[in-house]
Amino acid sequence: MRERDVIKFLSERLPIGDDCAIISLKKTNLLLTTDMLHRQTDFPEGMTPYTMGWRAVAVSLSDIAAMGGKPLGVVIALGAPEFEKKFLEELLEGALACCEACETKLLGGDTDRHNELTIVTTALGEAQKPVLRSGARAEDLVCVTGDLGRTAAALELLKAKEYEQANALLRFTPRLREGQALGSLARSMIDISDGLARALYQLGEASHVGFKVDAMAIPFALEVEELARDQDEIFEMGLFVGEDFELLFTLPQERLLEARRVCEFTVIGRVVSAKEGITMQLGPESIVLPDRGYEH
Amino acid sequence: MRERDVIKFLSERLPIGDDCAIISLKKTNLLLTTDMLHRQTDFPEGMTPYTMGWRAVAVSLSDIAAMGGKPLGVVIALGAPEFEKKFLEELLEGALACCEACETKLLGGDTDRHNELTIVTTALGEAQKPVLRSGARAEDLVCVTGDLGRTAAALELLKAKEYEQANALLRFTPRLREGQALGSLARSMIDISDGLARALYQLGEASHVGFKVDAMAIPFALEVEELARDQDEIFEMGLFVGEDFELLFTLPQERLLEARRVCEFTVIGRVVSAKEGITMQLGPESIVLPDRGYEH
Repeated sequence: MRERDVIKFLSERLPIGDDCAIISLKKTNLLLTTDMLHRQTDFPEGMTPYTMGWRAVAVSLSDIAAMGGKPLGVVIALGAPEFEKKFLEELLEGALACCEACETKLLGGDTDRHNELTIVTTALGEAQKPVLRSGARAEDLVCVTGDLGRTAAALELLKAKEYEQANALLRFTPRLREGQALGSLARSMIDISDGLARALYQLGEASHVGFKVDAMAIPFALEVEELARDQDEIFEMGLFVGEDFELLFTLPQERLLEARRVCEFTVIGRVVSAKEGITMQLGPESIVLPDRGYEH
Repeated sequence: MRERDVIKFLSERLPIGDDCAIISLKKTNLLLTTDMLHRQTDFPEGMTPYTMGWRAVAVSLSDIAAMGGKPLGVVIALGAPEFEKKFLEELLEGALACCEACETKLLGGDTDRHNELTIVTTALGEAQKPVLRSGARAEDLVCVTGDLGRTAAALELLKAKEYEQANALLRFTPRLREGQALGSLARSMIDISDGLARALYQLGEASHVGFKVDAMAIPFALEVEELARDQDEIFEMGLFVGEDFELLFTLPQERLLEARRVCEFTVIGRVVSAKEGITMQLGPESIVLPDRGYEH
């Protein structure tokens, strides 16, 4: 089974459907999310242990952000062939630094000897009213925070042995502040983990809607425009790689100004009916965005 | 670094020291714990996928039990070389069955392609007043739930290809009911993950006390007595293997009757001062229990 089939299989049996599980407790909602990263897929050659620790934590906190949550803490499970002290020290430093940047705490963990480096982070968060993937409605605006393709650019830079710049790009800050600011305004939200295209399909499926985005409006990272040789490569890096963990959200048009006051973002299109599908306007042409993205 | 050194290293840098991390929220305490299991160490030949799923969940719920907590939910991260549908189905069935037996829910998860089967479960729980490892006082009674050595016996049965009996022994039920019942009575508590000896040392270190246990009082599982060839083997299987996840706790003497009314357990000795160390009375002899146990 491919990862997507496995997720489908699981989602038919578990209450999966958002970035975090939701647990109601004492008039609030707890958010719980777990992410598994490992050497072969997630830690390419040249990524420092500090960056690995940072990203492992950031990926889980991003899921909290995607539901408009405030983080309460993180735990980490670490498997490695053998624990080299310096490696562990740096990895932990990165994890702690990311927690600090996000005003939360690394609370504990587990270790296990393992033949491949594996990090599983679990974040706990809280939101009075979590933003779901399922709330988008036709005519809403479609928006993204930040810019897209930084991880794709970083992967190119790693290949070119531009390690420092690559690692800096890879240490993204989860959009917790933005997620919380948008919490009461956005009607649906998700973090872009496998590329914008995949995220649009995930949001569309959960909300039973389609999207029409404007290629000219999509904010690609400067590094993407520098590294890409043509427009196709820009799209490839910016739409189908992901791992930048920006927020994709939909907003009723009448909340736009209010949202602008609390958070920076870019409007990239609007919500349409499900039968119109997910398309991208490219000059005079409207193309159907393919449903593909990064598979772990 | 050995696992114990890694844990020491981490515990100097993180607020580790109990079975779960504690997060105060809205006049209660949330408990969060994560456990990593993988094929080579935790899933020996002959263990069924159903049992693997069961145990993965049970191990984390046991940490909630060890602090007197009530479970709120479980998430699971699953890495495997390739996901075979039948295997996944059975594993998930085991995980779901354990959740059901513990009156909690499997809320979601993550998957990742991995060259070795790896399961990381994270449990969330709640306790008004979590029981810590650090509360034991001299003269308290030392007690355990259930009996010891079932997993050690199961490992022997697996070697003898007695798969059915072995798997049944391996599917332990986390002591959540007992943990909650003892929550307001026990002064310190821990689950026995790496053997009674190791657990006594962990509790002793956290509480700055020693223990004097009576070998004749320790409840060894029937299967241990059947499989062991002599007294030494009984001790080996019952004291130094662990993975049975019974609760070890200390109780003020005056709470004994009250505790007996809410929960079944065995008094195995009493708390002494730290300088008396951790000893086991064996007939006329008092032997120092070695600080060793199962290392993952």
